[in-house]
Amino acid sequence: MLEVKVISILWFIGVLAEAMTGALAAGKKQMDLFGVVIIGCVTAIGGGTLRDMLLGNYPLIWVENAHYLLAVAAASLLTVMIAPLMRYLSRLFLAIDALGLAVFSVVGAQKTLMLGYSIEIAIAMGVVTGVFGGVIRDVLCNQVPLIFKKELYALVALLTSALYVVMKLNGVVEWINLSVALTFGFSFRMLAIRYHWSMPKFDYQCQSDNIH
Amino acid sequence: MLEVKVISILWFIGVLAEAMTGALAAGKKQMDLFGVVIIGCVTAIGGGTLRDMLLGNYPLIWVENAHYLLAVAAASLLTVMIAPLMRYLSRLFLAIDALGLAVFSVVGAQKTLMLGYSIEIAIAMGVVTGVFGGVIRDVLCNQVPLIFKKELYALVALLTSALYVVMKLNGVVEWINLSVALTFGFSFRMLAIRYHWSMPKFDYQCQSDNIH
Amino acid sequence: MLEVKVISILWFIGVLAEAMTGALAAGKKQMDLFGVVIIGCVTAIGGGTLRDMLLGNYPLIWVENAHYLLAVAAASLLTVMIAPLMRYLSRLFLAIDALGLAVFSVVGAQKTLMLGYSIEIAIAMGVVTGVFGGVIRDVLCNQVPLIFKKELYALVALLTSALYVVMKLNGVVEWINLSVALTFGFSFRMLAIRYHWSMPKFDYQCQSDNIH
Repeated sequence: MLEVKVISILWFIGVLAEAMTGALAAGKKQMDLFGVVIIGCVTAIGGGTLRDMLLGNYPLIWVENAHYLLAVAAASLLTVMIAPLMRYLSRLFLAIDALGLAVFSVVGAQKTLMLGYSIEIAIAMGVVTGVFGGVIRDVLCNQVPLIFKKELYALVALLTSALYVVMKLNGVVEWINLSVALTFGFSFRMLAIRYHWSMPKFDYQCQSDNIH
Repeated sequence: MLEVKVISILWFIGVLAEAMTGALAAGKKQMDLFGVVIIGCVTAIGGGTLRDMLLGNYPLIWVENAHYLLAVAAASLLTVMIAPLMRYLSRLFLAIDALGLAVFSVVGAQKTLMLGYSIEIAIAMGVVTGVFGGVIRDVLCNQVPLIFKKELYALVALLTSALYVVMKLNGVVEWINLSVALTFGFSFRMLAIRYHWSMPKFDYQCQSDNIH
Repeated sequence: MLEVKVISILWFIGVLAEAMTGALAAGKKQMDLFGVVIIGCVTAIGGGTLRDMLLGNYPLIWVENAHYLLAVAAASLLTVMIAPLMRYLSRLFLAIDALGLAVFSVVGAQKTLMLGYSIEIAIAMGVVTGVFGGVIRDVLCNQVPLIFKKELYALVALLTSALYVVMKLNGVVEWINLSVALTFGFSFRMLAIRYHWSMPKFDYQCQSDNIH
């Protein structure tokens, strides 16, 4: 089961990358070290945790295997130490983050299908897994979630999950499916950043106080 | 079971109305189309989802039946398209939203009773179902939840749920109970908007940094 | 089982203290009375609720026994009435809040161990129980959670939980363990407030828009 190993490694890289985005966001709000670790953990495991809570799928992965939690906490602390280097590593970091987004979306959809849910729910859970860690991070940092505003982050999660699910239903061999979906998600996200692709914005300025 | 059909239709109208309030709130924050859809979905199904997660009542309705999710996403997108009309439709919209609040509160209390919980919890879950979709919407849009400040929104949910539960315990026939509770909740909310009723505010300005 | 009674009483005092911090925070945002009650309830029972939802441990305590919910709502309303006195009671209030933090952390870790989870998860759940009520309170009041910034609140929860778990594993008699862990947590928190102890802050000011 080589593809299981490869996807596990990629998933773990993604988890660590998410922990780092959380730690950096916490640093922008001048949180203390403990706040950094908590935000890092919540960002990294929040999406998958919300997915499993929505599905009632217990025990949660990190509750059953606490090593994930320790690794994520360590990655958050490491981020604090190498923060001065982040300016120079920002391209590498964006690439790892894009990889994480693709892996989370695919893994989220994959797990949901394996639990027997419908294809719509599998795709929705791919999106939840891919983006809600970042949503919770932004809520805890008291800002409007970036993924609702920028560079197709959520659309990448949707299309990547959908691509995986559609190929799966059409009997594509798992390792080819994983390779194609991950390559697609990663490339799409990197291109969206490079060319500042974005979706149409909805700007609604109504002064009525009663429509909230 | 005519009343089951009627309440299902009213509930569905309420769900769509909530999706629209979510989409409009997202538009005020200049979110992109995807953000609008996510906020719309979370607003519409967030209250019922939180109720069922608090009760451990799985699978969630929209997980079991993904059509709800698709309908809510469609209503959010529709809102973007008809947004220029919303100024003229604001009275109609407020009425639909008030109806949604009443239906959510009654349905939330009804389901909780049917699952065998106590009357206090049924009323509490009526409030959760009625108002927490809007609370999550406001948290994701980075503002203090409006329902904690304005026009008795939450009080309507509480009294409507309580009225339903009390009549139920006193053996009132279900369709009469539903009619009375819905009419009460809808009328109370509309009157509160019309006459700007509000609850006393609690304004606590303490400069001590340590009491947080 | 004297220690069970004592810890129950201390826990209940802590719950009420948390409800009061919630009510005061709501007052700073000029919420109405209903908002105050909801924020008070969420602050008091939010940490334990999140812990049990993460563990899939249903039914929740307050769902099974609605008296807790009523007591917490009453404490929130009481806070509004005695708010003018809070200035003079602030030392007493801080002490009760510190006691609450210690009790929540110990009880959170204790319950998690009793459910058969690992020591890492027991400590993590002590932190969740101790601090996430306050985190949810701050999110609903639209501010960066204070515990991520101030006076070792979260560190107290971590060390108190860890101390309890380590002593438990080493066979320390329960009532001695509880006494030592609670005394440690309470004293540490009070000293941290008195001497303004804090953890190193992580201040990351990166102008790059793409690393979020």
